[in-house]
Amino acid sequence: MRITTSRSFADVESDVREALAGEGFGVLTEIDVAATMRAKLGAEMPAYKILGACNPPLAHRALGIWDGFGVLLPCNVVIEDLGDRRAVIAFDPLDIAQVRDHTEIVPIATEVRARLERMLRAVEARRTPDLVAE
Amino acid sequence: MRITTSRSFADVESDVREALAGEGFGVLTEIDVAATMRAKLGAEMPAYKILGACNPPLAHRALGIWDGFGVLLPCNVVIEDLGDRRAVIAFDPLDIAQVRDHTEIVPIATEVRARLERMLRAVEARRTPDLVAE
Repeated sequence: MRITTSRSFADVESDVREALAGEGFGVLTEIDVAATMRAKLGAEMPAYKILGACNPPLAHRALGIWDGFGVLLPCNVVIEDLGDRRAVIAFDPLDIAQVRDHTEIVPIATEVRARLERMLRAVEARRTPDLVAE
Repeated sequence: MRITTSRSFADVESDVREALAGEGFGVLTEIDVAATMRAKLGAEMPAYKILGACNPPLAHRALGIWDGFGVLLPCNVVIEDLGDRRAVIAFDPLDIAQVRDHTEIVPIATEVRARLERMLRAVEARRTPDLVAE
Protein backbone atom coordinates (compact mmCIF):
# COMPACT_ATOMS: atom_id res chain seq x y z
CA MET A 1 0.00 0.00 0.00
CA ARG A 2 1.67 3.19 -1.20
CA ILE A 3 0.94 6.89 -1.65
CA THR A 4 3.13 9.83 -2.65
CA THR A 5 2.97 13.44 -1.53
CA SER A 6 4.75 16.71 -2.28
CA ARG A 7 5.20 17.58 1.42
CA SER A 8 8.70 17.69 2.94
CA PHE A 9 10.21 14.59 4.52
CA ALA A 10 9.93 16.07 8.03
CA ASP A 11 6.30 17.12 7.45
CA VAL A 12 5.40 13.68 6.08
CA GLU A 13 6.99 11.97 9.08
CA SER A 14 4.98 14.15 11.43
CA ASP A 15 1.79 13.56 9.36
CA VAL A 16 2.36 9.79 9.47
CA ARG A 17 2.90 9.75 13.25
CA GLU A 18 -0.24 11.85 13.81
CA ALA A 19 -2.36 9.72 11.47
CA LEU A 20 -1.04 6.48 13.04
CA ALA A 21 -1.97 7.78 16.50
CA GLY A 22 -5.44 8.64 15.18
CA GLU A 23 -5.84 4.96 14.23
CA GLY A 24 -4.60 3.69 17.62
CA PHE A 25 -1.03 2.85 16.58
CA GLY A 26 1.98 3.76 18.70
CA VAL A 27 5.43 3.90 17.09
CA LEU A 28 7.56 1.27 18.88
CA THR A 29 10.63 1.32 16.65
CA GLU A 30 12.30 3.75 14.27
CA ILE A 31 15.12 2.98 11.86
CA ASP A 32 16.88 5.71 9.91
CA VAL A 33 17.94 3.40 7.07
CA ALA A 34 19.97 6.04 5.22
CA ALA A 35 21.96 6.85 8.40
CA THR A 36 22.45 3.12 9.12
CA MET A 37 23.77 2.43 5.60
CA ARG A 38 26.08 5.46 5.85
CA ALA A 39 27.42 4.30 9.23
CA LYS A 40 27.77 0.58 8.39
CA LEU A 41 28.69 0.64 4.69
CA GLY A 42 29.71 4.23 3.89
CA ALA A 43 26.90 4.11 1.30
CA GLU A 44 24.81 7.18 0.45
CA MET A 45 21.11 6.84 -0.30
CA PRO A 46 18.10 9.21 -0.23
CA ALA A 47 16.33 9.71 3.10
CA TYR A 48 14.54 6.49 4.10
CA LYS A 49 12.94 5.78 7.46
CA ILE A 50 11.04 2.80 8.83
CA LEU A 51 8.53 3.46 11.60
CA GLY A 52 7.38 0.31 13.42
CA ALA A 53 3.73 0.83 14.36
CA CYS A 54 1.73 -1.29 16.78
CA ASN A 55 -1.90 -1.23 17.86
CA PRO A 56 -1.61 -3.02 21.23
CA PRO A 57 -5.18 -4.41 21.50
CA LEU A 58 -5.08 -5.86 17.97
CA ALA A 59 -1.52 -7.21 18.42
CA HIS A 60 -2.49 -8.80 21.73
CA ARG A 61 -5.49 -10.57 20.15
CA ALA A 62 -3.34 -11.83 17.25
CA LEU A 63 -0.62 -13.16 19.58
CA GLY A 64 -3.29 -15.01 21.58
CA ILE A 65 -4.31 -16.87 18.40
CA TRP A 66 -0.87 -17.47 16.87
CA ASP A 67 2.19 -17.00 19.08
CA GLY A 68 4.47 -16.73 16.03
CA PHE A 69 2.72 -13.52 14.96
CA GLY A 70 5.57 -11.55 16.57
CA VAL A 71 7.79 -12.18 13.53
CA LEU A 72 5.41 -9.82 11.69
CA LEU A 73 5.33 -7.12 14.41
CA PRO A 74 5.42 -4.16 14.38
CA CYS A 75 3.62 -3.07 11.19
CA ASN A 76 6.20 -1.13 9.24
CA VAL A 77 5.50 2.21 7.59
CA VAL A 78 8.27 3.42 5.27
CA ILE A 79 8.86 7.07 4.40
CA GLU A 80 11.11 7.48 1.38
CA ASP A 81 12.48 10.54 -0.38
CA LEU A 82 11.92 10.24 -4.15
CA GLY A 83 13.52 13.62 -4.94
CA ASP A 84 10.54 15.75 -5.98
CA ARG A 85 8.07 13.73 -3.88
CA ARG A 86 7.97 11.52 -0.78
CA ALA A 87 6.50 7.99 -0.76
CA VAL A 88 4.75 6.44 2.21
CA ILE A 89 4.54 2.64 2.04
CA ALA A 90 2.64 0.53 4.57
CA PHE A 91 2.98 -3.17 5.22
CA ASP A 92 -0.15 -5.16 4.36
CA PRO A 93 -0.54 -8.07 6.81
CA LEU A 94 -2.88 -9.86 4.40
CA ASP A 95 0.07 -10.24 1.98
CA ILE A 96 1.44 -12.89 4.33
CA ALA A 97 0.43 -16.47 3.56
CA GLN A 98 0.85 -17.51 7.21
CA VAL A 99 -1.62 -14.80 8.24
CA ARG A 100 -4.20 -16.01 5.73
CA ASP A 101 -3.58 -19.60 6.96
CA HIS A 102 -4.66 -18.63 10.50
CA THR A 103 -8.31 -17.98 9.73
CA GLU A 104 -9.01 -16.44 13.14
CA ILE A 105 -6.29 -13.85 12.45
CA VAL A 106 -7.75 -12.77 9.10
CA PRO A 107 -10.38 -10.42 10.62
CA ILE A 108 -7.68 -8.80 12.80
CA ALA A 109 -5.33 -8.39 9.82
CA THR A 110 -8.24 -6.98 7.79
CA GLU A 111 -8.88 -4.42 10.53
CA VAL A 112 -5.15 -3.49 10.64
CA ARG A 113 -5.12 -3.05 6.87
CA ALA A 114 -8.24 -0.85 6.96
CA ARG A 115 -6.64 1.37 9.61
CA LEU A 116 -3.36 1.64 7.68
CA GLU A 117 -5.28 2.49 4.51
CA ARG A 118 -7.12 5.29 6.35
CA MET A 119 -3.76 6.49 7.71
CA LEU A 120 -2.37 6.66 4.15
CA ARG A 121 -5.48 8.52 2.90
CA ALA A 122 -5.13 11.02 5.78
CA VAL A 123 -1.44 11.61 4.99
CA GLU A 124 -2.24 11.99 1.28
CA ALA A 125 -4.92 14.59 2.07
CA ARG A 126 -2.50 16.85 3.97
CA ARG A 127 -1.23 19.67 1.80
CA THR A 128 1.50 22.22 2.21
CA PRO A 129 -0.25 25.62 1.98
CA ASP A 130 0.53 27.50 -1.25
CA LEU A 131 0.61 30.79 0.65
CA VAL A 132 2.37 30.95 3.98
CA ALA A 133 1.67 34.01 6.14
CA GLU A 134 4.95 35.70 6.99
CA MET B 1 11.45 -21.27 11.18
CA ARG B 2 11.35 -22.31 14.83
CA ILE B 3 13.43 -24.17 17.39
CA THR B 4 13.01 -24.72 21.12
CA THR B 5 15.63 -24.99 23.85
CA SER B 6 15.77 -25.67 27.57
CA ARG B 7 18.13 -22.73 28.24
CA SER B 8 16.92 -19.74 30.27
CA PHE B 9 15.33 -16.75 28.54
CA ALA B 10 18.36 -14.53 29.29
CA ASP B 11 20.78 -17.19 28.02
CA VAL B 12 18.76 -17.70 24.84
CA GLU B 13 18.66 -13.96 24.18
CA SER B 14 22.42 -13.77 24.54
CA ASP B 15 22.87 -16.91 22.35
CA VAL B 16 20.64 -15.38 19.66
CA ARG B 17 22.53 -12.07 19.65
CA GLU B 18 25.88 -13.87 19.43
CA ALA B 19 24.71 -16.21 16.65
CA LEU B 20 23.16 -13.29 14.72
CA ALA B 21 26.44 -11.37 14.94
CA GLY B 22 28.24 -14.48 13.67
CA GLU B 23 26.04 -14.35 10.55
CA GLY B 24 26.61 -10.61 10.00
CA PHE B 25 23.36 -9.34 11.53
CA GLY B 26 23.22 -6.37 13.86
CA VAL B 27 20.20 -5.92 16.14
CA LEU B 28 18.58 -2.60 15.16
CA THR B 29 15.40 -2.81 17.21
CA GLU B 30 14.21 -4.59 20.32
CA ILE B 31 10.63 -4.85 21.57
CA ASP B 32 9.80 -6.31 24.96
CA VAL B 33 6.27 -7.34 23.96
CA ALA B 34 5.28 -8.58 27.43
CA ALA B 35 6.35 -5.26 29.00
CA THR B 36 4.55 -3.30 26.25
CA MET B 37 1.29 -5.23 26.76
CA ARG B 38 1.57 -4.76 30.53
CA ALA B 39 2.13 -1.01 30.12
CA LYS B 40 -0.50 -0.38 27.42
CA LEU B 41 -3.23 -2.88 28.31
CA GLY B 42 -2.47 -4.07 31.85
CA ALA B 43 -2.33 -7.57 30.30
CA GLU B 44 0.04 -10.26 31.60
CA MET B 45 1.72 -12.66 29.18
CA PRO B 46 4.84 -14.88 29.29
CA ALA B 47 8.17 -13.26 28.37
CA TYR B 48 8.20 -12.42 24.66
CA LYS B 49 10.82 -10.32 22.88
CA ILE B 50 11.27 -9.32 19.25
CA LEU B 51 14.82 -8.58 18.07
CA GLY B 52 14.98 -6.77 14.72
CA ALA B 53 18.06 -8.07 12.90
CA CYS B 54 19.64 -6.52 9.84
CA ASN B 55 22.55 -7.55 7.63
CA PRO B 56 23.44 -4.15 6.11
CA PRO B 57 25.10 -5.36 2.86
CA LEU B 58 22.19 -7.71 2.03
CA ALA B 59 19.56 -5.11 3.03
CA HIS B 60 21.30 -2.46 0.90
CA ARG B 61 21.30 -4.75 -2.15
CA ALA B 62 17.62 -5.60 -1.66
CA LEU B 63 16.62 -1.92 -1.30
CA GLY B 64 18.51 -1.13 -4.53
CA ILE B 65 16.30 -3.65 -6.36
CA TRP B 66 12.94 -2.93 -4.69
CA ASP B 67 12.60 0.28 -2.68
CA GLY B 68 9.53 -1.06 -0.86
CA PHE B 69 11.64 -3.79 0.75
CA GLY B 70 11.84 -1.62 3.88
CA VAL B 71 8.34 -2.72 4.93
CA LEU B 72 9.95 -6.13 5.58
CA LEU B 73 12.99 -4.81 7.47
CA PRO B 74 14.45 -5.67 9.88
CA CYS B 75 14.23 -9.49 9.97
CA ASN B 76 12.48 -10.31 13.21
CA VAL B 77 13.67 -12.98 15.59
CA VAL B 78 11.21 -13.79 18.39
CA ILE B 79 12.21 -15.28 21.74
CA GLU B 80 9.24 -16.65 23.64
CA ASP B 81 8.93 -18.28 27.05
CA LEU B 82 6.90 -21.50 26.78
CA GLY B 83 7.18 -22.34 30.50
CA ASP B 84 9.51 -25.36 30.53
CA ARG B 85 11.23 -24.33 27.27
CA ARG B 86 11.99 -21.25 25.21
CA ALA B 87 11.09 -20.92 21.50
CA VAL B 88 13.13 -18.97 18.98
CA ILE B 89 11.21 -18.08 15.83
CA ALA B 90 12.78 -16.39 12.80
CA PHE B 91 11.05 -14.57 9.98
CA ASP B 92 11.45 -16.30 6.60
CA PRO B 93 11.65 -13.64 3.85
CA LEU B 94 10.75 -16.26 1.22
CA ASP B 95 7.30 -16.56 2.85
CA ILE B 96 6.47 -13.17 1.36
CA ALA B 97 4.77 -13.24 -2.05
CA GLN B 98 6.15 -9.78 -2.92
CA VAL B 99 9.68 -11.04 -2.29
CA ARG B 100 9.18 -14.02 -4.59
CA ASP B 101 7.66 -11.65 -7.20
CA HIS B 102 10.92 -9.65 -7.35
CA THR B 103 13.08 -12.34 -8.94
CA GLU B 104 16.32 -10.42 -8.38
CA ILE B 105 15.56 -10.34 -4.64
CA VAL B 106 15.04 -14.12 -4.38
CA PRO B 107 18.78 -14.96 -4.16
CA ILE B 108 19.23 -12.31 -1.44
CA ALA B 109 16.23 -13.61 0.52
CA THR B 110 17.55 -17.15 0.10
CA GLU B 111 20.89 -16.05 1.55
CA VAL B 112 19.13 -14.32 4.47
CA ARG B 113 17.11 -17.46 5.15
CA ALA B 114 20.22 -19.68 5.07
CA ARG B 115 21.96 -17.38 7.58
CA LEU B 116 18.92 -17.31 9.90
CA GLU B 117 18.67 -21.11 9.71
CA ARG B 118 22.34 -21.43 10.71
CA MET B 119 21.70 -18.97 13.55
CA LEU B 120 18.81 -21.15 14.79
CA ARG B 121 20.95 -24.32 14.55
CA ALA B 122 23.73 -22.58 16.52
CA VAL B 123 21.29 -21.49 19.23
CA GLU B 124 19.79 -25.00 19.37
CA ALA B 125 23.26 -26.54 19.79
CA ARG B 126 24.03 -24.43 22.88
CA ARG B 127 23.42 -26.38 26.08
CA THR B 128 23.31 -25.39 29.69
CA PRO B 129 26.06 -27.46 31.36
CA ASP B 130 24.68 -30.23 33.57
CA LEU B 131 27.52 -29.65 36.03
CA VAL B 132 28.54 -26.13 36.88
CA ALA B 133 31.89 -25.68 38.62
CA GLU B 134 31.34 -23.78 41.86
